[in-house]
Formats: sequence, structure tokens, C-alpha cells
Amino acid sequence: MEQVKSHIEGNRDRFLSELFELLRIPSISAQSVHKGDMLRAAEWLKSSLLKAGVDRAEVMSTEGNPVVYAEKMVSPEAHTVVVYGHYDVMPVDPVEEWRTEPFEPVVKEGRIWGRGADDDKGQLFMHVKAFEALVATGSLPCNVKFMLEGEEEIGSPSLYRWCEEHRELMKGDVILVSDTSMIAWDTPSITCGLRGLCYMEVEVTGPNKDLHSGLFGGAVANPANVLTRLIASLVDDRGRVTIPGFYDDVRELTPEERADFNKAPFSLEDYKKALDVDDVQGEEGYTTMERTGVRPTLDVNGIWGGYIEEGTKTVIPARASAKISMRLVPNQRYERIADLFERHFRAIAPPSVRVKVRNLHGGEPYVSPTDLPAYRAAAKAMEATFGKKPLPFYSGGSIPIVSAFESILGMKSILMGFGLSQDAIHSPNESYGVENFYRGIETIACFYRYFADMK
Amino acid sequence: MEQVKSHIEGNRDRFLSELFELLRIPSISAQSVHKGDMLRAAEWLKSSLLKAGVDRAEVMSTEGNPVVYAEKMVSPEAHTVVVYGHYDVMPVDPVEEWRTEPFEPVVKEGRIWGRGADDDKGQLFMHVKAFEALVATGSLPCNVKFMLEGEEEIGSPSLYRWCEEHRELMKGDVILVSDTSMIAWDTPSITCGLRGLCYMEVEVTGPNKDLHSGLFGGAVANPANVLTRLIASLVDDRGRVTIPGFYDDVRELTPEERADFNKAPFSLEDYKKALDVDDVQGEEGYTTMERTGVRPTLDVNGIWGGYIEEGTKTVIPARASAKISMRLVPNQRYERIADLFERHFRAIAPPSVRVKVRNLHGGEPYVSPTDLPAYRAAAKAMEATFGKKPLPFYSGGSIPIVSAFESILGMKSILMGFGLSQDAIHSPNESYGVENFYRGIETIACFYRYFADMK
Repeated sequence: MEQVKSHIEGNRDRFLSELFELLRIPSISAQSVHKGDMLRAAEWLKSSLLKAGVDRAEVMSTEGNPVVYAEKMVSPEAHTVVVYGHYDVMPVDPVEEWRTEPFEPVVKEGRIWGRGADDDKGQLFMHVKAFEALVATGSLPCNVKFMLEGEEEIGSPSLYRWCEEHRELMKGDVILVSDTSMIAWDTPSITCGLRGLCYMEVEVTGPNKDLHSGLFGGAVANPANVLTRLIASLVDDRGRVTIPGFYDDVRELTPEERADFNKAPFSLEDYKKALDVDDVQGEEGYTTMERTGVRPTLDVNGIWGGYIEEGTKTVIPARASAKISMRLVPNQRYERIADLFERHFRAIAPPSVRVKVRNLHGGEPYVSPTDLPAYRAAAKAMEATFGKKPLPFYSGGSIPIVSAFESILGMKSILMGFGLSQDAIHSPNESYGVENFYRGIETIACFYRYFADMK
Repeated sequence: MEQVKSHIEGNRDRFLSELFELLRIPSISAQSVHKGDMLRAAEWLKSSLLKAGVDRAEVMSTEGNPVVYAEKMVSPEAHTVVVYGHYDVMPVDPVEEWRTEPFEPVVKEGRIWGRGADDDKGQLFMHVKAFEALVATGSLPCNVKFMLEGEEEIGSPSLYRWCEEHRELMKGDVILVSDTSMIAWDTPSITCGLRGLCYMEVEVTGPNKDLHSGLFGGAVANPANVLTRLIASLVDDRGRVTIPGFYDDVRELTPEERADFNKAPFSLEDYKKALDVDDVQGEEGYTTMERTGVRPTLDVNGIWGGYIEEGTKTVIPARASAKISMRLVPNQRYERIADLFERHFRAIAPPSVRVKVRNLHGGEPYVSPTDLPAYRAAAKAMEATFGKKPLPFYSGGSIPIVSAFESILGMKSILMGFGLSQDAIHSPNESYGVENFYRGIETIACFYRYFADMK
């Protein structure tokens, strides 16, 4: 490993400047205007992987954005690691809150600032560079297959089918993913649980046009008022989702599991201070860690209707809309929750309005056992580089495709991510620690070594 | 009157093409980018009034948009009529729903299409042309003062002070306003009641930045969810506003008044069909006419927060906002209702968020007695041109400045408007009937004749 370490050490600046090239491509998958940027990012990765030493690299088209596939096979007997990552990023609005240009990365205060710095360009690029270091030093001990997609932030609509069509190609022992965070820099962790997601959009329509709120106000249903009533009714005073059947499949933790779960270091005061809130809020009877780790939620991600510009307009809007997503936990299932949501939302709408409900995307919750050989290899790798055994961690986030990997490709995923909560992924001013980037590269290289020796 | 009629008849095309010049000026008072257009509209009116025959016309500056003042004094003994109108218009969004350009007026199907066609450029311009016809035919029987403002759609913030500073200049017998609608073309009416208005903006702030809804969802208050709960709670299941004290000053109608009130022709089926709604909705125990005419309301005019673009973004927004207005009825008072709203909204907000409440503008409700000489003159004028006695009508709309005219200038206002409900004021595709325009001019000219003879 000394050789690998010195390869990383000797190429620090180049690794960073290569990452910056990738970060400069505004590959926002949610916005169709960036279609061309998706292809640019994919082609850039292909060429970067070829330079790093893969035997084969392809930009494989799908109905949506392409999948970058690359491989290097060292021996039929060696373990095969599938590296998953995504080159698409979140939108950047509200853009006025960024202190630097989202797509003009800079290093400041030991951090890389820019959209995708952590999620997931920074993290996936660690894998390319760890691979490069192993190849360059003649010490790659496993077969490696890269599967890098461009639609994770919109729910990976094309990757499901792509996996189904490439089962043979994707045969391997484990999927390695760096798209999550650690508890803290001094509390390394491996994510062994992810929440599922069910992302819906609703529209409430009233009159056939915007109306004067004086001439009609009080006599016709106002879609914006109705929408607030409908949404408000979806969560009760105890913070529980009111959709009938919503909790039917939720696995409740045993008292022992709950006690274990709450052992991870956590300071509510620091948490509130970091978010600048006077109080937290969530489902009654659960801790903050439980609320994000093992309990389902319902959040409004966006709401809009009527006049939202400067000044006043006395209008009853013809329609009002909201994007509403639910995070799911084992053993809730995305499609069932989407059905329950739609049925309930239609049922509670008054006859004075019409509603449209759309299921935008989703995915199943995921749990990874901690006794897998690959988990143990990851834990040893982190202990080697961080000097501490990592804790298993249940993240509130979702990577919907991860459960599909298990059902379609028959492989478990190891979620060894190196982000931190301060990275502000999905928010303005996303960043990623420069040292997280370099230590991540080293840890990934270690993983291959330990995993190669596992039975 | 025959001479006046033939003057109108002989100048139909010119009147319309002059109106179009005014309609082409995008004088949207709510949007500061249109500051220059406000001045252009004011200057255009000054020059138009001079051509019509006033002795004096001035664009008088205020802290906001200017007031156009003009006068013609025929005799110290004659009655003095003050004509009020406004040259500012509503914003045009959603602009994609317009079938024609909002500021490029056209005549089609007997109607003038464009922003301001009715509200209020079309209606105020009838007064300029009625005045012209009377002057041109040497038959103006009253002194006339024009007071045309550019801030009605944002609550006339500067006109209150302007009136206080020009009490002497504005002395007169009555204020004549055409900024309202009739019940129907074959049911002429004069508005003798207007609701007041209290227009608020609220902002709910949670965490100090947008958060990832997976990592934080369920553990922190989502400002968009909280906003929907707060707004939903402002109106109960019976359609009554829940703000403590809100109904304290509402004057309940006697059973006789209610019976009278519901005599005006009204078809609920036609009403629903015109709006394309399956059901109406409002305060329990009141008819649609009562709900808009004599009952107060609370409507969301705009709501926004989080991700509102194409696709999905899994975000807990840092803040969410709404514009909320209440229509007021006698004897509610605007400032008191604003205070009650603010106090209540702050009281119901949970400790997990912060709220801002702003009072954007408002005005008092107004009632005009039907036994005033000017009301009787207006009724005779409408009967002369429409062939039917007009009904007294309680409109749900608000012209906040009208009650201020009474308290500051000591004059009642006669609300003789010629619009129709299909004119879609404040909405896309505003229009005004060409015949409403010409018959309005004739009716206004008649008004002067009848009023001159009233004791």
C-alpha cells in the first residue's frame, strides 16, 4: 500500500484539477436544457477511465441519459467489484444563495465548492483515482466494473431496464457505492440502511381561469386554500402520516435495536445550532436519529400557485400544485405507498375542485447486513485509514436503485461514503472536504486489498 | 342630448383608437420595472383631457405614481362632479394563457381585448369622452374635476395623502366612479356596497438553508408543511375564518335585508357552468350572492416555496411564503383586522419555525345610500340609456380609496360601472364590450344632465 499512497501523494494536484473538469459540466438531470451536458459528462468519464487503465470503456445509450460502463479484468478467479456512481447533479436553485458559481469549482478553507463536489462527482471520481493508483502500481487485486449513471437525482428511470438487459455483463460479487456521508470526520461510519422514496406531484384545479378575489372570493373554492387543507391533513398533530395503510408494513425496532441505534454520538444542541432552529419537530415518541434513520416521513418539496411576484394581486388562482415526497423504511413498498397516497388524496378532495396526482419516481428502502465479507473489508479499510472502527449507520436518504441492484443483479451494495453533513448536498453552496477526497481514494484502494483476501 | 349622442356616434372610431393608445402603455403598478410607463400613461391622459376641453390639467407628483388632475369650471353655482378613475393595471401573469397580447388591444367578437380594457382604462376613458361630448356640444351643465390615480391596484398608497393635501382643490358635491360591473347587460345595476380589503404576506422560515429531505426529513420542521397547516387552520370546516375577533364587527343583515338581497336575478347553475366547477364552496348558511356581497373572506392569492421547476428535487425548503387577503364588510376595520391576523398567525406558529407577517395594503368597506341625489341621477341616467331601472348591487370587490374619499374629502361616491362579469378583470384575456364602452359614455353624459337639475 505504500506505493499506492505515494502515487496518490504525488498526484494530488492533478487529481483535483481533473475533478474540476468534471465539476464544470452542468449535468443537471432534472432539466432537459442540460441534455447535451449529460452526454459531455459521460464522454468525459469514459476518456478519464481509459486514461486510468480500464481495458474497455463505453458510453451506452438508454432511453434517458447514457450509462458509462468500463471494466478491467485481472483474473477469472479474482473477486469482481462493481463500482456504482452517478454523474448527474441536482438543480442549483435558489442560485442567488450561492457564494461561488455552482459550476466553477474553487478550493477555499480546505473544501471544494461547487455543485456535485460531494454528490456524487467528487465521490465517484475517488473510485476512478483509486483504480488508477492500483493499476499504476501494478497492484489491482480484483476485477473491476464501473457502472456510472446520469439519472440518479431523478430516480434512475433508465438504469432499471439497463440492468435487466445487462445481467450477464454486470455479474460480480458486490457493488461498491460512495454516495453517502459519515457521521463525522472523527466518527467514520458505513451506511447499512437507506430509506426508500415515493415522490408525487399534485395539482388542485378550481375555476377555469384566475378569478378576481373580490368578485368571487368566499363563493368558490380557492385551489390554493384547498391545497393547504389537503396537505395539512396528511400529517397529524403527533407528526404521523394520516394516509390509511401508510404504516402497515413499517417494521418497528425492538427495544434493543432502538438502544443500539441511539448509541451513535449525537448532540441535539449542536444539531439545532447548525440548522439555526429553536426546536426540532417530528414524529412523537422517537429521537431525531430514529426520525431520520428508521421512520417514514412526508415532506412538501415544493408548492406553488397564484401570484408570487412582487407586490399584490387580488386573485383566486385557477390552480395550485405541490411536490410531495415520502421517505420509506423497511418493509414499506414504493408502488403500494404511491397507490395509497393517490387514493387518499383523491378521496379527501372536496367536490368543488378537481385533483391530478402524478407519481414522479421512487424506490424501495434498503438494508445491508454487517456480516457480509465486503462489509467487513470496507470496515477494515476505514479502520486502516481513519484509525477507528466505523459504526454502522442508518441514513435517512434514498438511493432507490440500490435495492433494485439486489433484486435485478442479485448483489448487495456496500455504501462506503465519505461525505459529511456540512457538505450541503442538494443545497446552495455544496462542498466537499479536500482531505475527504484524498482519504477516500486511499480507503477505496485499501478496500480492494482486503476484499481480495476475503473468502 | 341628441347633439351629444350624435357627437358620440360621429366619433366612434376615433374614441376607440384613442383608447387603444392608452391600453398599449403597460402601466402595471405592482412591478417597479414599469415606473416609466406609469408616467407615460399619466402624461397621455393629461394631454387627452386638454384636447377634450378642460381648462387646466396637471400631472401632480406623489411619493409613488402621479395623480392626473384636471378641471373645467362652468359656474360657481353649478354642482361639482369629481370623476375618479385609475390608469394603472394588474400584472398580466400567467402571460402564456393570454390569447392575444395583453398590451396590444384588438377588437374581436364585439369586445376590446387587452389588459385594462375594462379595469379601469376603458371605464375611465368613457368619462373623458362623455366630458368631450358635453363640451363639444356646449352642454356641460356641471363643474367637473378629474382625479386619476396610478396606484389603485396596489391599494392607492399615495392618494390618501394627496387627498389630505388637496382638500380645498377637491371640493365638490359627489365623486363619480366607473370601476365596477353591472349584474348583466339586461340587468343594469349601480354598486352601493363594496367590501374592504386587508392584504397580508407571510413567510415561514425553518432551517438556515435548503436541506436534503432524506437526510433531515422527519426530524426538522418543513416550512412548506408548516405553512400549509397554518393557512389551513385559518378557515374552519364551515367556511368561517378562525382568527379570534374576526367577526366581532361584522354587521349581520336582518331577515328582510337578506330577502331583498337575494332578489337580484342569479342562477347557480349558470354560475357554476361559467366557472366550470362542479360545486361552489363558501361560508355555511349563506347564499352565493351573500357570500360575495356581505360576508367577509380569507383567500390565498399566492403561495410559494421549495422546488417549483420541472422534475424532482428532494429538498426541505428553508422558507415558504404566501400572500393572503381578506375581504371585509361593514363594520370591520382594515387596520384592526390586520392586527388580529398578525397576532393570530404569530400565536399559532410552532416554536420550530420563525414567521414574518407583513401588511401589504388594505381599505375599509363602503356603503352608498340609494336616496342621495347623485344616486338618483345615476339611476335615471341608466334607465334612460338601458330602458330599465338599475338595481342596487353589493359587490364583493374593493376600492379601498372610496371610503377614504368620504372620510377625507367628505363626499360620497357613486359607483356607476359598466363592466360585466365575463370581462375577466385581473385575469388573462381581460376584455370589455364595445357597446358597454359607447353606452357608458352616453349614460355618463346623461348623468350630468340629471344631476345638474337635482336639488
